[in-house]
Amino acid sequence: MLMTDIIEKKRYKLPLSDKEIEFFVSGVTDKSIPDYQISALLMAILLNGMDRRETVTLTALMAKSGDILDLSDLSHTADKHSTGGVGDKTTLAVAPIAAALGCTVAKMSGRGLGFTGGTVDKLESITGYKTALETTEFKKIAKEYGMCVTGQSGNFAPADKRLYAIRDVTATVNSIPLIASSIMSKKLAAGAETIVLDVKFGSGAFMKTAEDAEKLAHEMVEIGNGAGRKTAAVITDMDVPLGFAIGNALEVAEAVKVLKGEGEEALTGLCLLLAAKMYQISFGKTEEESVSAAKKAIADGSAFKTLCAAVRAQGGDEKLLTGEHKFPEPAASLELLSPAEGYITAMNSETVGKAAAMTGAGRERLGDCIDYSAGIILLKKYGDYVQKGERLATLYGAPQRIKDAQERLLGAYAIEESRAPKKPIVYKVIE
Amino acid sequence: MLMTDIIEKKRYKLPLSDKEIEFFVSGVTDKSIPDYQISALLMAILLNGMDRRETVTLTALMAKSGDILDLSDLSHTADKHSTGGVGDKTTLAVAPIAAALGCTVAKMSGRGLGFTGGTVDKLESITGYKTALETTEFKKIAKEYGMCVTGQSGNFAPADKRLYAIRDVTATVNSIPLIASSIMSKKLAAGAETIVLDVKFGSGAFMKTAEDAEKLAHEMVEIGNGAGRKTAAVITDMDVPLGFAIGNALEVAEAVKVLKGEGEEALTGLCLLLAAKMYQISFGKTEEESVSAAKKAIADGSAFKTLCAAVRAQGGDEKLLTGEHKFPEPAASLELLSPAEGYITAMNSETVGKAAAMTGAGRERLGDCIDYSAGIILLKKYGDYVQKGERLATLYGAPQRIKDAQERLLGAYAIEESRAPKKPIVYKVIE
Repeated sequence: MLMTDIIEKKRYKLPLSDKEIEFFVSGVTDKSIPDYQISALLMAILLNGMDRRETVTLTALMAKSGDILDLSDLSHTADKHSTGGVGDKTTLAVAPIAAALGCTVAKMSGRGLGFTGGTVDKLESITGYKTALETTEFKKIAKEYGMCVTGQSGNFAPADKRLYAIRDVTATVNSIPLIASSIMSKKLAAGAETIVLDVKFGSGAFMKTAEDAEKLAHEMVEIGNGAGRKTAAVITDMDVPLGFAIGNALEVAEAVKVLKGEGEEALTGLCLLLAAKMYQISFGKTEEESVSAAKKAIADGSAFKTLCAAVRAQGGDEKLLTGEHKFPEPAASLELLSPAEGYITAMNSETVGKAAAMTGAGRERLGDCIDYSAGIILLKKYGDYVQKGERLATLYGAPQRIKDAQERLLGAYAIEESRAPKKPIVYKVIE
Repeated sequence: MLMTDIIEKKRYKLPLSDKEIEFFVSGVTDKSIPDYQISALLMAILLNGMDRRETVTLTALMAKSGDILDLSDLSHTADKHSTGGVGDKTTLAVAPIAAALGCTVAKMSGRGLGFTGGTVDKLESITGYKTALETTEFKKIAKEYGMCVTGQSGNFAPADKRLYAIRDVTATVNSIPLIASSIMSKKLAAGAETIVLDVKFGSGAFMKTAEDAEKLAHEMVEIGNGAGRKTAAVITDMDVPLGFAIGNALEVAEAVKVLKGEGEEALTGLCLLLAAKMYQISFGKTEEESVSAAKKAIADGSAFKTLCAAVRAQGGDEKLLTGEHKFPEPAASLELLSPAEGYITAMNSETVGKAAAMTGAGRERLGDCIDYSAGIILLKKYGDYVQKGERLATLYGAPQRIKDAQERLLGAYAIEESRAPKKPIVYKVIE
């Protein structure tokens, strides 16, 4: 088999056979195919597409290209993945709710590059919390407490790692089959039986339109189901940030509010829906009974207790969650005041995210330090009516950094006389 | 400027600016752009195209990426290029005819890979003929005799060299703007004022259809004219081999026949047309007076005398051309007999070319030796009526090689009861 024949086939918009995809993935993994042939094929795939079978095959083979986490000794394993947004702390609330309902959320999570840290970074804002666990300890905690979130160890989907690195420097990221196979190969390797995806669209998301997000979601659900995992996707609006808090410790605190029943309505609704979906699919329940079970796990405190116990098991100071201890104070704070009177008709997520990164809450480069106490608390959100000079947000962090961030943050807002139309956070559920 | 932005632009089918193309070509030449980004852009160009301005700019910049042959001290410099075919010995006849008419054909020519040798290889079948000349000697001979054909020296269009090497291994060869810019960048660097292109189509050519050949020809003529060279193209049928001879010494002998007025009709017609076009454009004549001048150069022996003088000046034994000396005899010969009675309705050029290469007339790899006396003489051609057992062709070369080649050659023919439609060799002239 020749790589040039495979490229040529895709150039002519023909589907690749399973054997051809296997040749490609194995050559990507063992490096026998050079970068320049890979990038030519990736561009041909981006422009000429891949059908469902090709995408499913590609994903399964990339998942098998490295380690696969064996969670078969745990019951009702359920994973959750978000395509990434601003203020997205859902995992911190969803994992304990799903765990309280009987799912096992044994999750290896990534660090963040960009707006704020990833879930693992957020958890590390809890003093003592260990994110580098041996697999046996990781599974033991997951088994005992229903959840365990650690950093990634092991060599998962190395074929995807190489492909992603090439896509990143050849303008071939933006292809639905390639994005879907990249995400799902890692999810398949992560071992859970049930996978619930939160596919975001809007100014703060990778997919800019609901239509593209829906295509991507469909693709991923089909891939997951095709690989024998129970998969569903929730398509959600990331045009405005999720919740009020953007920042690491700030988001942990907001997730705790959700678990205590004091969370913002849209954020709480999304957390309930995601956890309910995990439970529903994993246990074969109806949507209605799942959502009501999720609500009950908040109301009776079992979800919050689960989070506290898991955090303690991982060495973290759970008193930071109960309020008995306080998170470290930020160096300084600054108010952002409204420059006008009117309705907030836009609140660009990407700009808010960049402002949050400027406060010190995110990394620009791998290895950069995160200021766990830095970030932004939004006081007014999309749709709110504000007076001129009224507080829109508070920024936390080092004095000079938050001064720069304040200026950037102001650019995220549009304030107008006319009311802004309501936008539901959940656009669609695909299962 | 970022290469990823340039790739992305072409991915979205947008035209690249001259500055972007300049950034690309200079990065290809100085190797600051890696192979994998080049191949991604090439695939995007292949699938999304380039407009005329982009192609003209790309070509001019590739031509300028290395040495440019300065022929400004010669008058009426005229070059000729064929996109390659089977039995294409036209340069050997066209150059002396054009030179006899007053053009200066100072031509650096390539060696061949594939069916038979290139023009330089064919000339080397003439004992003593030197193809490695210093530029000053090369220009001196061209000035004195009106023609000089040598091998390539110098670093012409290195950007094209790198792009071509990448295209070859990434299935991105087959793009009209890329083919046109590749050929024309080298022609522009070769320095002649007038460029006449012979663009072939059919079974033995790179372009399989007349329509594709016409597109390519238009593109190249526009590029040439856009770069200030007087350019024309002749689109010709390469569905059947050109003339009767395929092989190095065999083709030199056939070119001599053309110059003596004893050549096959179609081959002679094409040589006259190509030489006439060079003269016509270079001197601003009409097509009619140019063709009749070219015919006269054959009839009065001036073209043949020009070839003999130029060959002598380059150290070659011109008595091989006049017949006073004989070319070395091939090791053996073998007849191909017709397996049936009927009309020859097809004669696949590519198959004939491959059979010729098998006799030893071509190279499989760079550096392979060529058997100058090997090759094929076609005795019957497309449209001829043959009896069963009648001789179709004679193969020359080493005994075992021509035995294998004989079998291959037979596969080129279709012999049927019904007459084959006539096919003119010249499909169209574009100027």
